[in-house]
Amino acid sequence: MPETTPTETTPLPLKWVGPLALCSETGVEEIAVPLATYETTLWPSTNRGARVSCGSGGITCTVLRDHMTRSLLFEVPGAATGHQIASWCTSSIAELQTVVSTSSRYAHLLEVHPQQIGNLLFLRLSFSTGDAAGHNMTTKAADAIAGYLCTTFPGLSHVSVSGNFCTDKKVSAVNGLLGRGKEVIAEGVIPERLVRKYLKSTSKEIAELNVRKNLLGSIAAGSLRSANAHVANLLLAFYLATGQDAANIVEGSQSITHVEDRNGDLYLSLTLPNLILGTVGNGKGLPHVEEALQRLGCTEQRDQGENAKRLARICAATAWCGELSLLAALTNPGELMASHEKYERS
Amino acid sequence: MPETTPTETTPLPLKWVGPLALCSETGVEEIAVPLATYETTLWPSTNRGARVSCGSGGITCTVLRDHMTRSLLFEVPGAATGHQIASWCTSSIAELQTVVSTSSRYAHLLEVHPQQIGNLLFLRLSFSTGDAAGHNMTTKAADAIAGYLCTTFPGLSHVSVSGNFCTDKKVSAVNGLLGRGKEVIAEGVIPERLVRKYLKSTSKEIAELNVRKNLLGSIAAGSLRSANAHVANLLLAFYLATGQDAANIVEGSQSITHVEDRNGDLYLSLTLPNLILGTVGNGKGLPHVEEALQRLGCTEQRDQGENAKRLARICAATAWCGELSLLAALTNPGELMASHEKYERS
Amino acid sequence: MPETTPTETTPLPLKWVGPLALCSETGVEEIAVPLATYETTLWPSTNRGARVSCGSGGITCTVLRDHMTRSLLFEVPGAATGHQIASWCTSSIAELQTVVSTSSRYAHLLEVHPQQIGNLLFLRLSFSTGDAAGHNMTTKAADAIAGYLCTTFPGLSHVSVSGNFCTDKKVSAVNGLLGRGKEVIAEGVIPERLVRKYLKSTSKEIAELNVRKNLLGSIAAGSLRSANAHVANLLLAFYLATGQDAANIVEGSQSITHVEDRNGDLYLSLTLPNLILGTVGNGKGLPHVEEALQRLGCTEQRDQGENAKRLARICAATAWCGELSLLAALTNPGELMASHEKYERS
Amino acid sequence: MPETTPTETTPLPLKWVGPLALCSETGVEEIAVPLATYETTLWPSTNRGARVSCGSGGITCTVLRDHMTRSLLFEVPGAATGHQIASWCTSSIAELQTVVSTSSRYAHLLEVHPQQIGNLLFLRLSFSTGDAAGHNMTTKAADAIAGYLCTTFPGLSHVSVSGNFCTDKKVSAVNGLLGRGKEVIAEGVIPERLVRKYLKSTSKEIAELNVRKNLLGSIAAGSLRSANAHVANLLLAFYLATGQDAANIVEGSQSITHVEDRNGDLYLSLTLPNLILGTVGNGKGLPHVEEALQRLGCTEQRDQGENAKRLARICAATAWCGELSLLAALTNPGELMASHEKYERS
Repeated sequence: MPETTPTETTPLPLKWVGPLALCSETGVEEIAVPLATYETTLWPSTNRGARVSCGSGGITCTVLRDHMTRSLLFEVPGAATGHQIASWCTSSIAELQTVVSTSSRYAHLLEVHPQQIGNLLFLRLSFSTGDAAGHNMTTKAADAIAGYLCTTFPGLSHVSVSGNFCTDKKVSAVNGLLGRGKEVIAEGVIPERLVRKYLKSTSKEIAELNVRKNLLGSIAAGSLRSANAHVANLLLAFYLATGQDAANIVEGSQSITHVEDRNGDLYLSLTLPNLILGTVGNGKGLPHVEEALQRLGCTEQRDQGENAKRLARICAATAWCGELSLLAALTNPGELMASHEKYERS
Repeated sequence: MPETTPTETTPLPLKWVGPLALCSETGVEEIAVPLATYETTLWPSTNRGARVSCGSGGITCTVLRDHMTRSLLFEVPGAATGHQIASWCTSSIAELQTVVSTSSRYAHLLEVHPQQIGNLLFLRLSFSTGDAAGHNMTTKAADAIAGYLCTTFPGLSHVSVSGNFCTDKKVSAVNGLLGRGKEVIAEGVIPERLVRKYLKSTSKEIAELNVRKNLLGSIAAGSLRSANAHVANLLLAFYLATGQDAANIVEGSQSITHVEDRNGDLYLSLTLPNLILGTVGNGKGLPHVEEALQRLGCTEQRDQGENAKRLARICAATAWCGELSLLAALTNPGELMASHEKYERS
Repeated sequence: MPETTPTETTPLPLKWVGPLALCSETGVEEIAVPLATYETTLWPSTNRGARVSCGSGGITCTVLRDHMTRSLLFEVPGAATGHQIASWCTSSIAELQTVVSTSSRYAHLLEVHPQQIGNLLFLRLSFSTGDAAGHNMTTKAADAIAGYLCTTFPGLSHVSVSGNFCTDKKVSAVNGLLGRGKEVIAEGVIPERLVRKYLKSTSKEIAELNVRKNLLGSIAAGSLRSANAHVANLLLAFYLATGQDAANIVEGSQSITHVEDRNGDLYLSLTLPNLILGTVGNGKGLPHVEEALQRLGCTEQRDQGENAKRLARICAATAWCGELSLLAALTNPGELMASHEKYERS
Repeated sequence: MPETTPTETTPLPLKWVGPLALCSETGVEEIAVPLATYETTLWPSTNRGARVSCGSGGITCTVLRDHMTRSLLFEVPGAATGHQIASWCTSSIAELQTVVSTSSRYAHLLEVHPQQIGNLLFLRLSFSTGDAAGHNMTTKAADAIAGYLCTTFPGLSHVSVSGNFCTDKKVSAVNGLLGRGKEVIAEGVIPERLVRKYLKSTSKEIAELNVRKNLLGSIAAGSLRSANAHVANLLLAFYLATGQDAANIVEGSQSITHVEDRNGDLYLSLTLPNLILGTVGNGKGLPHVEEALQRLGCTEQRDQGENAKRLARICAATAWCGELSLLAALTNPGELMASHEKYERS
């Protein structure tokens, strides 16, 4: 029986790159970051971005939002009934939270966002989930709420504990607009001198390339709330090194790079609306994962959720380094290929 | 210096599940498949789908398209000039192939798809790339073409070797519509008896859930050419076990599950427009990767590209098993959570 | 000078079709509806749907949401400052309403939804606007709020009174998810007998066609929160006949048709998330518009906003008739062309 | 019976604005354009853009592509059969054209683009349609092809003459990427002096606003291949004045405005991928429509399709004027509201 096959492991190549400079309230901290990947050119590329961050005052990462979602799907007799139930739910968070608390110590219901299509009612539930990414605890909590609602409203008929309006590991607009995981903005300003020295480029060139490639090129491609160079690469490597559910790079990839030429200095921001990660929960018990989280300073005694937010800031800063480095490389024809050839042949 | 840090490895949990039944011209073949993941519930879930496939005549996987793309970005004096150059390119594939052949033995130019925005010209180049996923060889080939075009057309000014109209590891509509990687459709019909026995469900329930969750729920979420339950999970685990550039699950996730109730029997198809993978190239030299590819029968002496196509068919069949199993589970309230609790606590 | 050219008029063809049957709390009302269009086949097609509605108990239209939006765009020193200001705004609706009341008697601020990209802050303001569609009063109110915020928060720098996050007359996901205009669901159940008699079809055929064309076909086309046959046609003709700002059919077109075969009877629902219309305001003073609104019973003494909601329900019911009729026609090969030829040649 | 109700007309307000300056091979031509709309502020706003065009050398409009589409929808026994039939179709354009020629003198088949989802096969047919927009002749031609294919391939089962993969009057990515109607780029360069004099702005301000509002704001809103200020307004008014099927502003609205500051001068381009219009066909026989087309110089003796292309260029230039004027107004806080108040109260 396959279930009893002893579990093996895949030895995925990993390197600690950096350090990068992360700004915090208490100053600038230099942190090396682990990237597990088969794409080895990611290491020197990220490393260059990290070096620039250290020389230029660091990367400021702001967490705007933090919650995990799950969407219940019900059938209703008609839209009017659905609307009454939805309205009751959106104004009964406290009552629903008592239901949630029977299923989880950590999940706290923050919001219910309804969506109706004909006789179908989707309820998108948002929870704070402490230091866990929260996939499972929100499913459990959603399941408890589903049971409660079906008992309370006889007209309601349960269809699915997940109605794809959550939405997990799938392209959507809802995750960016209403949030899923941590919404983080990474920002940094690089003095003109360092742009020239380390990036062999200018702010004007990088800003113009960002408009043409990341904004207009993405629009041409029919992208959806996504305008960046290769955020998915960085998220994947960071997620795998830190024990995350890495398929969440799908929504994580829907990030936006915005660059401004400020009289020669370079302002680069990366807005990541859906950074889904945690420092506890599934995948986190493994020794190498725990060691990585520890080296990143994300296993300390802190308030609920603060270790995970720190991890999110470090992850966002890492992706910022990747965006900076690749954009700069693309302004120098030939640099990209030369780098690939150098590192992949070694 | 970080570049000299010795490379470590991340021991990612892996299990061979199945076997699943894959239909081919010569009959039905039973194949176990490797899934590397921190999400251990994926193993028994996929396994159930695999078991159903073996009982029901197997999964037929058809490869519709197979190419890798890269998009050049140029500036032109005006739209009319851009249009002339674009028209020349689309009708000069043979001439451009002579340029490609200077950069790669394997890449063959198939098509040039232009897109203009004002004074910008994007050229999306499609190449066959043999058994490699082809990221690097297409970048090299695109670079060669860029140089050639700039020499040939004085009005053309090179902006970037990648203009996000490719598009790599980012959400888009262009990849699904024009293709990137292998377009594969996995199909299978499950007799009513097996739907009841193994899936504890009915075709009617599963087909109705698919419409409500995967189609309408995805539409409600503002998805883009994406309508499935959790394809990203399966692709990620399969990609990591076989040495792929796994960030390509972003476009891979944009797949469509279509289910029909055929008088009690269940027709389930999964259309994967962007399966990006290879059996040679980056990430493939590692011992555990080679062993996995060998066990899957994808390292044999075959025509150029046939090993990679076989791998794509196996990958698509694996994702089919995952879709089937999760959809069935969702028609049985409580089954999903029970499964998560059982496997994650062990 | 062109501004002084005397204004002419375009005599757009118009016909009153129906009556259709609209359900309300006090019973079923039969209402003829005006359609102004160059596409004359729209008249008999809508008429058939209307006739079916009268025979089958009528169309129930539920208004789920009603507001108009405008998004301010600001520059901030950094994401953290932007987040503080955004948080202040979302929790200071009452204070901001005092600002709004200086600019408009009718606009009432309901919600502020912020969105940040790097150093940019978008504030999407939702207002109730009484019986007006509300484009102008929300722009004025937004303008007043912009002035107030710039005075209150020195870090804030005004960029634009509209930041395309509103979004007016442009394709988006935000309008469907967060609402703009009236969100209305039109529903009706047609007995099997009438499906056969008037529509020459069956519920099974129409439901299956809806899945394949409106759901899967739209997904294949890379649609965004849109799954219908031709809602735009009906909205345009109804808008032009009733003096609306008809370019709002762009967001109006993003509607979802959902059909179920209920043991031979046909359940058809049309979910219109963005029905933007009014009974007062711009375009409404003209004699023929006033007459149309009067015949529709939308100029009575009612509570603020109730005339416009009635108009929205009638409009949604009209679009429902159009969806029903076209879907039915498409299940009968040849019917569509025959109809076009018959009416366009006369 | 409603069908016998005499047809009325809606007197929609109309004004000829401009003239705008349109560049052609033979020089710059000044053309007044008709706008039929209830939104009267559109007239002075467009007029300002037109005046700027006349002062600055004119607007160059390039037609990149010109065809109309319709998508057939079939059921197939399995994906492999579907793939064979699709491959046959894409390589049998000449044979299929003989079928088309039995249904229409004007329609010529240019391309067949297939798309498969499981057991469904969509065939998107592209036709040149002369001076007509071509909705009906392509439906007729598609119908003829459907009949032919079902006879030729016994496995093929006809589902619908339109599978929403066309796609008509609905939001999509396919229309922008593969074309529908006329793809036109309007471009103009405005000297710094005129930017200041007429637009009370600077190139830098307008270019920066375009990035922040039209590109980033649209991305934030979850737009799809759409990045402009208010193209839908201009298209609607122009379409209604010239007898077009104006619901096609839905796909028309998915246009992209790109602006560059060229050392103080302003380059503004508007890329309209889906301008659907004609000078003959449905809606064109009416006296006021014919008069408008005549005044625009679009009823002359020209090669097939050339009158419609001229109309498309004039329409694109009109939309360019609207974009320019509104963007400029938005850089001057207060101007927009003042204009609305001035014109709507008169």
